[in-house]
Amino acid sequence: MDERPIGVFDSGLGGLTVVKRLMEFLPGENIIYLGDTGRVPYGGRSRGTIMKYARQDISFLLKFDIKAVIAACGTVSTNGLEDIAGDYHIPVRGVLGPTAKAAVRETRSGRIGIIGTKASILSGAYDRRIMELMPQAQITSNACPLFVPMAEEGRITDGDVALDAVAREYLEPMKSADVDTLIMGCTHYPLIRPTIERIMGPRVRLIDPGEETARSLRDQLKSDGLLNGRDQGGKYKYFVTDSTEGFAETGSLFLNAAIDGSVEHVSLEDF
Amino acid sequence: MDERPIGVFDSGLGGLTVVKRLMEFLPGENIIYLGDTGRVPYGGRSRGTIMKYARQDISFLLKFDIKAVIAACGTVSTNGLEDIAGDYHIPVRGVLGPTAKAAVRETRSGRIGIIGTKASILSGAYDRRIMELMPQAQITSNACPLFVPMAEEGRITDGDVALDAVAREYLEPMKSADVDTLIMGCTHYPLIRPTIERIMGPRVRLIDPGEETARSLRDQLKSDGLLNGRDQGGKYKYFVTDSTEGFAETGSLFLNAAIDGSVEHVSLEDF
Repeated sequence: MDERPIGVFDSGLGGLTVVKRLMEFLPGENIIYLGDTGRVPYGGRSRGTIMKYARQDISFLLKFDIKAVIAACGTVSTNGLEDIAGDYHIPVRGVLGPTAKAAVRETRSGRIGIIGTKASILSGAYDRRIMELMPQAQITSNACPLFVPMAEEGRITDGDVALDAVAREYLEPMKSADVDTLIMGCTHYPLIRPTIERIMGPRVRLIDPGEETARSLRDQLKSDGLLNGRDQGGKYKYFVTDSTEGFAETGSLFLNAAIDGSVEHVSLEDF
Repeated sequence: MDERPIGVFDSGLGGLTVVKRLMEFLPGENIIYLGDTGRVPYGGRSRGTIMKYARQDISFLLKFDIKAVIAACGTVSTNGLEDIAGDYHIPVRGVLGPTAKAAVRETRSGRIGIIGTKASILSGAYDRRIMELMPQAQITSNACPLFVPMAEEGRITDGDVALDAVAREYLEPMKSADVDTLIMGCTHYPLIRPTIERIMGPRVRLIDPGEETARSLRDQLKSDGLLNGRDQGGKYKYFVTDSTEGFAETGSLFLNAAIDGSVEHVSLEDF
């Protein structure tokens, strides 16, 4: 039994779609969330800048007595997180491993698609991880840079003309390649899942990194004896690097539930 | 005669549309440009965060022996720049004043439209400035948050389906209000001018803050005796807070010319 909280960070509020899954799979665990809303988005930045920001995010979370760090951010998870994870005294995990594993488990044809931010796709991290697990896999990937700002603007309704035009363009290579499994490699994409599902068709399995990561973390905490022993009543604390104004409203969109927990502003410059 | 350079800063590379105008109006002046590409965009952030970042941007430019600072960024110009300008020993100017003045000069009906980032529109700064100059003005404003990411993705061709859908929606209030003058209140908007022009129609005057700011700065430097006395051959230096990779390519899109000058990475955390 280990009552220490789990630390979760993301470039902004998108990571709350991952927190939502953690709450489902680990309803008794306490969570401390950091959203770097003062510097969101990370997805168009260089690897060096992404890792610098990730180190600051992790250092902030380590101020608390936590038992693990989850990088909810697809961009961070694919741009060097595993290279720095060993520098910390507690497990630091991203979404890459569990998500790649799930895609390999779900595919029948071996034709797997990956969509994500520019930085995630450019990194080639998903491709490499999948090929390690399934050398015969055929991978098609495409960056979808406008999905994040569109979702952040609440332009998530299936049928939205602009969203539809952009999504058709981004997903066209996936359809041409006849993938049967598609990794939604960015925290924001679950919000536009209906549009992605409609365009890809009912026979394509969509992989949600938040779900896979939460399941994998639950299994690991269980096997390491680190669960906190409760099956409900987890407590939540939220920190953001921009103003806390509007957090409850926007946050609840991503969390798909009301925000239950305090929210505080924090400055990361000293971390 | 004053050969010191002019310092220009922006949240990212959009400010190069303003530099383009400075090069036109002041071809002999030397320019030092800072693009905060590691934290772009500013337009969705809170006023406090915007001013904190602006102070760091200005402090960096003041490392050089410059004669004036221009905030090319519409978001910074409308979110408190004038409140902090007096803290510096050289003129620190934004785009707000010259742009509002131009709109009042150009309108015939007094019906003026303003488009900009969320933070710019929420600030109400353009509305207040215009009403001071023309109390009978009727102002219609609307935030256009997706124009920046779309322009940054190169989605600027008139006829692009997604751009067209978003632009029609954003500009609809301007058309309903029958404005005869429209302020393009963000550095990125000149790139999508053809689409804005087509939707608004030929009778609406578009005001480009870069052009107005460059003209105004030229007149001020002239009257203060601070021009450097050359009418060509200005030298340029560029600094960015994310990686310099790709700067020449993306920068030349905004500048509408090849980048002629060095580019360096800089970290603003100590400013």
